[in-house]
Amino acid sequence: MKRITLVITAFCALLLPLLPMAQEKKDDLLKEARELFEPIGKPPGKITDNDITPAKIELGKMLYFDPRLSSSGLISCNTCHNLGLGGDDGLPVAIGHDWKKGPRNSPTVFNSVFNAAQFWDGRAADLKEQAKGPIQAGVEMNSTPELVVATLKSIPGYKTPFEQAFGKGDTITFDNVARAIEAFEVTLITPDAPFDRYLKGDEKALTDQQKRGLKTFIDQNCASCHSGVNLGGQSYFPFGLVTKPEAKLLPTEDKGRFAVTNTAGDDYVFRAAPLRNVAITAPYFHSGQIRDLRDAVTVMATTQLGAKMNDKDIDDVAAFLNSLTGKKPVVSYPDLPPSTTKTPVPVQ
Amino acid sequence: MKRITLVITAFCALLLPLLPMAQEKKDDLLKEARELFEPIGKPPGKITDNDITPAKIELGKMLYFDPRLSSSGLISCNTCHNLGLGGDDGLPVAIGHDWKKGPRNSPTVFNSVFNAAQFWDGRAADLKEQAKGPIQAGVEMNSTPELVVATLKSIPGYKTPFEQAFGKGDTITFDNVARAIEAFEVTLITPDAPFDRYLKGDEKALTDQQKRGLKTFIDQNCASCHSGVNLGGQSYFPFGLVTKPEAKLLPTEDKGRFAVTNTAGDDYVFRAAPLRNVAITAPYFHSGQIRDLRDAVTVMATTQLGAKMNDKDIDDVAAFLNSLTGKKPVVSYPDLPPSTTKTPVPVQ
Repeated sequence: MKRITLVITAFCALLLPLLPMAQEKKDDLLKEARELFEPIGKPPGKITDNDITPAKIELGKMLYFDPRLSSSGLISCNTCHNLGLGGDDGLPVAIGHDWKKGPRNSPTVFNSVFNAAQFWDGRAADLKEQAKGPIQAGVEMNSTPELVVATLKSIPGYKTPFEQAFGKGDTITFDNVARAIEAFEVTLITPDAPFDRYLKGDEKALTDQQKRGLKTFIDQNCASCHSGVNLGGQSYFPFGLVTKPEAKLLPTEDKGRFAVTNTAGDDYVFRAAPLRNVAITAPYFHSGQIRDLRDAVTVMATTQLGAKMNDKDIDDVAAFLNSLTGKKPVVSYPDLPPSTTKTPVPVQ
Repeated sequence: MKRITLVITAFCALLLPLLPMAQEKKDDLLKEARELFEPIGKPPGKITDNDITPAKIELGKMLYFDPRLSSSGLISCNTCHNLGLGGDDGLPVAIGHDWKKGPRNSPTVFNSVFNAAQFWDGRAADLKEQAKGPIQAGVEMNSTPELVVATLKSIPGYKTPFEQAFGKGDTITFDNVARAIEAFEVTLITPDAPFDRYLKGDEKALTDQQKRGLKTFIDQNCASCHSGVNLGGQSYFPFGLVTKPEAKLLPTEDKGRFAVTNTAGDDYVFRAAPLRNVAITAPYFHSGQIRDLRDAVTVMATTQLGAKMNDKDIDDVAAFLNSLTGKKPVVSYPDLPPSTTKTPVPVQ
């Protein structure tokens, strides 16, 4: 027995010098990660000229869930950016008014406040500007600023919430609708993902596989485009930087950011997708044709990086991406004030 | 001064004998009302063979809001029975899969547990049976029991909620989906309307006009069909008992309960609509063509009662009907578990 103890002690003694190395290796990865990524902190209290007040958030929540912002009275922001799901609709492309299909996959609303600009092509500078888009798009909510304002003014129960958010007077305006929705959306963040806990120093928050995936993610330069608090959403890159994706992933008619800037170099350029909650926001890419996160990683490796990743690498990166799923905010369903006989008749 | 006091005293003395009469008149109305109507109490703890447990309610809430119960992945129970609005969609008739219009106005889900049977024609005995209808209707959610079960089984996050609600084993069944939805819907009651407070003895809960309206409602026999806790929802009557309604209100192709019983006398027979929250559930009737509550009262007076009501009577009854708006339950939006690559592809 004594002998066994001695052997074990000797064995442990042999291992001892290795421990600092292992520790250092771990620390290196965390250090590297901290240089590239940020945990989700508090949402901003102000967006450009929009103070994010409790009254504005509450009104914004009502508007976000109110289908009467659409001309049919059936489609709300939440229809395509469903807070019960991943802040999106889980469909390849959005379905809107008259069952028309939109041109692109609905991005998640969660953490969108941390993106540099909104939409796949970054054509809206902020959430306020973004909110005005789908309300007016014929294939989405199919309304107009005039119809939205007329509808809200016809509903007496909206008077006080608008006054509380924007003061007395003629405050029921399309701009204020967008401001309130922005205020609510600023609260839609999902902190406390395993990766956030890791970045904050809890090294056990990631599994070994997830750490290997993180290492591969960094070493293979995924983080060149997918960095920061949202692991993306900050800058624009051609989809097919190295190798052109197959046609179903990159339909020729959608030239991406070219439609915004009208600059030849912006052909098929899109905003690098923010990767927070990516594991719960399939299908992937602007075309929404890939359902498996592993396949999405493979496509990115090929088209953007020209990187050879074996199955294990891909599994590891997918495992790491699963660590980006955060905690959704608890949202109580709003009590929407009733329409009146003055409310414009829904368009069916 | 003394003289004035004397005069007032004498005047009051003259009035004194009248007081019991006024009191009695008030009491009479309340007494009469209590014989016809009931305040909303607690919801039942059991519906036929379905125990209403917290786990079942929680699962039912998830399913109620989950658009993946539809084949498109876009339409949930809440789409047409919106808990933010009046538990309905505020549209003349439902819009469902492929933007198809349904044949009838979506009834409110609130307090539906108190109806004797479900749907405008009472073709579902209970909420459990009702829930199965729209999920399968081609013009609504357009799914099948098999697709619903395959979808839910493909989502690992539904395993535990089903086990907690129905025990271990093969409990993800279409029957259990309906049971859980029923359990949640049982909680969707709106107590504490002014009329409830009145029935419980608070005579100030109704305005004088609302009391006049209540009196007219009783005297004109509205309460013959619209009585009980839900002021309706208990029995069946031809729409056009006295005078046939105009064609837009009673489209000839929809023969109502005839399609259920196949009995000649059931031509154009419908369940008397429950009137709780009627002020916030326009448009009215199974055809959904009347938006103004006053107009709805006028139509009823003419078609069902052959009653002559002047404008004041109609205003009074409408005012009374406004006292039936209760307090909606506070519902936190559920966190729905994510789909997987095994989840059936949505049908677009």
